[in-house]
Amino acid sequence: MALSSAYSEIISNAIKAIHARTFFAQYPEHPKAYGEDAAPKGQVAFDSQRNHKFEGLLQSNATEWIGEEVSPYTLEALGVTYPAFDVDTLIVRSGRAFEQWKKVSVEDRAEVLVDALERIKNRFFEIAYATQHTTGQSFIMSFQASGPHANDRALEALALGYEELSRFPSAITWEKPAGKSSIKLEKTYRPIPKGIGLVIGCSTFPTWNSVPGLFASLITGNTAIVKPHPKSIYPIAVVVAEIQAALQAKGLDPNTCQLAVDSSSNLITKKLAEHPLVKIIDYTGGSAFGSYIEQLPGKTSFTEKAGVNSVILDSVADIKAVAQNLSFATSLYSGQMCTAPQNFFIPENGIKTNDGELSFQDTVNALTSAISGLAANPQMGAGILGAIQNEATLKRVESSKDIADVLVEPTQVANAEFPKARTCSPVVLETNAKDFGVYENELFGPIVLFIKTKNTEESIRLAKEMAAKHGAITCAAYTTNDAVAANIEDEMESVFTPVSLNLTGGIFVNQHATFSDFHVTGGNPAGNATFTNPEYVNKRFVWVGHRKMA
Amino acid sequence: MALSSAYSEIISNAIKAIHARTFFAQYPEHPKAYGEDAAPKGQVAFDSQRNHKFEGLLQSNATEWIGEEVSPYTLEALGVTYPAFDVDTLIVRSGRAFEQWKKVSVEDRAEVLVDALERIKNRFFEIAYATQHTTGQSFIMSFQASGPHANDRALEALALGYEELSRFPSAITWEKPAGKSSIKLEKTYRPIPKGIGLVIGCSTFPTWNSVPGLFASLITGNTAIVKPHPKSIYPIAVVVAEIQAALQAKGLDPNTCQLAVDSSSNLITKKLAEHPLVKIIDYTGGSAFGSYIEQLPGKTSFTEKAGVNSVILDSVADIKAVAQNLSFATSLYSGQMCTAPQNFFIPENGIKTNDGELSFQDTVNALTSAISGLAANPQMGAGILGAIQNEATLKRVESSKDIADVLVEPTQVANAEFPKARTCSPVVLETNAKDFGVYENELFGPIVLFIKTKNTEESIRLAKEMAAKHGAITCAAYTTNDAVAANIEDEMESVFTPVSLNLTGGIFVNQHATFSDFHVTGGNPAGNATFTNPEYVNKRFVWVGHRKMA
Repeated sequence: MALSSAYSEIISNAIKAIHARTFFAQYPEHPKAYGEDAAPKGQVAFDSQRNHKFEGLLQSNATEWIGEEVSPYTLEALGVTYPAFDVDTLIVRSGRAFEQWKKVSVEDRAEVLVDALERIKNRFFEIAYATQHTTGQSFIMSFQASGPHANDRALEALALGYEELSRFPSAITWEKPAGKSSIKLEKTYRPIPKGIGLVIGCSTFPTWNSVPGLFASLITGNTAIVKPHPKSIYPIAVVVAEIQAALQAKGLDPNTCQLAVDSSSNLITKKLAEHPLVKIIDYTGGSAFGSYIEQLPGKTSFTEKAGVNSVILDSVADIKAVAQNLSFATSLYSGQMCTAPQNFFIPENGIKTNDGELSFQDTVNALTSAISGLAANPQMGAGILGAIQNEATLKRVESSKDIADVLVEPTQVANAEFPKARTCSPVVLETNAKDFGVYENELFGPIVLFIKTKNTEESIRLAKEMAAKHGAITCAAYTTNDAVAANIEDEMESVFTPVSLNLTGGIFVNQHATFSDFHVTGGNPAGNATFTNPEYVNKRFVWVGHRKMA
Repeated sequence: MALSSAYSEIISNAIKAIHARTFFAQYPEHPKAYGEDAAPKGQVAFDSQRNHKFEGLLQSNATEWIGEEVSPYTLEALGVTYPAFDVDTLIVRSGRAFEQWKKVSVEDRAEVLVDALERIKNRFFEIAYATQHTTGQSFIMSFQASGPHANDRALEALALGYEELSRFPSAITWEKPAGKSSIKLEKTYRPIPKGIGLVIGCSTFPTWNSVPGLFASLITGNTAIVKPHPKSIYPIAVVVAEIQAALQAKGLDPNTCQLAVDSSSNLITKKLAEHPLVKIIDYTGGSAFGSYIEQLPGKTSFTEKAGVNSVILDSVADIKAVAQNLSFATSLYSGQMCTAPQNFFIPENGIKTNDGELSFQDTVNALTSAISGLAANPQMGAGILGAIQNEATLKRVESSKDIADVLVEPTQVANAEFPKARTCSPVVLETNAKDFGVYENELFGPIVLFIKTKNTEESIRLAKEMAAKHGAITCAAYTTNDAVAANIEDEMESVFTPVSLNLTGGIFVNQHATFSDFHVTGGNPAGNATFTNPEYVNKRFVWVGHRKMA
């Protein structure tokens, strides 16, 4: 590695972290790490942006200014509008920028992109408020997920891209012995980017889910068009603005990375995705649209769709610790995480604990009381559950009550700071293993199903079947029996689902760490790609090797 | 890398070669390197196999024994029959073997596969005769392409697979600081194979084109079913037999790699390809079937299809050296190589040479006389052109004469050793740039088109357009002008086509070296994959990371 970049240490540390896979964070997740001033300055920036045009983008001649974001905490419009452009304008500008960007050296691209991350860092608090008031995440989750964690994910993608692009020599002399003399060729190897990359964002994690693909496409020499969810633009608009600023600071075309906003009533996603010059698509969102993206001919796509995540309960040391951990996992951001557990498989004869057998009913009771207790806890409920991003999620909770026995009714979650917040505690339902129609689809939001199985063997079989047929991003399992644990890992990995075993305390199945966990495996219907394995960057460019007589 | 394997040096040298990309060969291409006895023993083995069952496979209970290979040199049937099996039998056996093979360590898999290559090495001469008398290649080409070069390609794929599978630690402790204490997880990372890999062979390069995918699938823990072209089974049957012997020697299920023969009248390829347990498909052959393979849902496919390879003539130092080189390139195995040049773009005002301007007509004359001279040369013609694999290729040559002006008529190539050989010297046609219907398809076989263009700029534009629309595996260019050379490289790499510049002497555009050239870029319609880049192995398995409380 011969990085001349000012940021070479950041990149080389990130590459080391990718390979060590131990804990590493370039951007600390604690708000305090950013100094006393950062929080109030972020608040001021957010407040000043409200009810104003978002002027930070370097994209000129908008056809109109649009915006429809509404805070799930106040149910009021943010009033921020963004410049909108014709699809053709976006494509033409991206194509022009591509001719320049593809010729920029990998080192210079890396420098621009780390510079962008450093600029974004200065706006973590503004991004946090923007995320909170578009997604409904709590402030602290908004800060961590959209700020440092997202930046770390972006850095991971760019560092791995840097490594892959630098993996083979750029030029060699090839000399093949041929009798008395030899044949000599000069060979050059060039990683040729594919073209324009489209990044399609989702409403719940507007930066965390989008920046890995964005930075992976950019480091490999592709240009990018970022199409956020119309209800969740502001956080990623800041990211795009700072990338554009970093490009401009180096004299490069800001259109290398463009924001493409649209409105719910006039979506431009398909028109962008189907454009022949769009070669790469990164997508996070629902399964139906994701499957449409995956089957588009001539595109390299990276999707993260819906999945049905299982919890397999076999035996536990301490049911209280387990119930506490799982209640947090199900409540965190009201189940609006792709990693949230949904289906709890519990044997009809109950589970073993260090204090003896626990019946099915007692296991269920331990879990339900932890879940409802957390939501009702005035110190913790609002902070952990946050708000519901979308009205449709509330309706889904309501209608889920018709499909199974209701063990815990959903209720409002008291929020002292935002009394009007759109909230909902988890509905807990009980059903039987044979009624797979009830639990075989993702029920996005605060919906938890307890499924009574014959035994752990059936629990594993059903969790595996769900992952194979409908996808799964993660699986939580609890067993004190090593053979059962090994069997669960074997069975779930055969459907490309990672297992989190016996988590208690301050770590949850929902959390996938940058530089350590491969988020989404890409092996089952939950998505076709992983954050961040070598394939995630390698598929964005093509090695071309020229030869000439020496 | 911690290889305990007996073959660790071979693998680590291969990994070094992959990264150095300078000349490297584990298996020498000179027949003499294999000792005095090797050639006659190979001849005896081949002669003894003729008109007999191929008994070397460890696949029992065949439904029937079939075979329809015919020597292009004698036009006589080889009389070799192979065991045939129902698709369901092949799949069930492969699925059973998968349960065992996926659990074999990467080190042990590597050991088995290098052992297989060493066993194959002992049969290079038999494979050479088998290749000659199925494909029509000359003996020396058969030896090199199906023997050492194929083995090197297989080794390249297995070594890169070994590296990728060993790239991340298999287990780590992840410890995240959390205030006064820390959160500690034990994480394991497992590369999970996708399932059954199908390898679909072609008639002209039965081992060279098939072993990279075969060894890439096997090293990554997938099982393999090899479906050769019914007219070209014998060479790959030896390869499969030796892989099975190496598996058995280690007490592993030989069905980890099976041969699946069929007949022209009852092809089983689609049934295999569409089987839900087949997850990976490697394919070499025509474009229509290749595109069918690529669009099959739920499969990871690696295709090498047809392409239209161009020669751009702008200016040369010495037209004689260039004509000699290009006549060899077009004649080698009678144009039946995927890398054979087809379309020669020549400016109407001719080209510059060190001896002054050469008119279009004089350029054409220099090339045609070199091409027809080579075919007529009694010392060289037969050895370079070999024989025509397929009757359909002869018909294609004949009918090509209707589409453009014939500059050189195709003729028989005298072959003293095999007077009945199916041979054909290149037909050379002339057409105009505007008649793109004439030259925009691959005309497989000894068919060369000289296309008169306005100037080099138009030549480049057309070569680029052909590659983008119809695919290209390579492009030969001749120019003494550095700016023109750079422009050709820029333009052709934008359609993912490598350029070979100013080749003269003993190196030809057709030849793609193992460990150095990325054969087929995967970026244009000629195919979606490369021998051998990291993607070529990474797409065959999925990283799954499990976590548990430490």
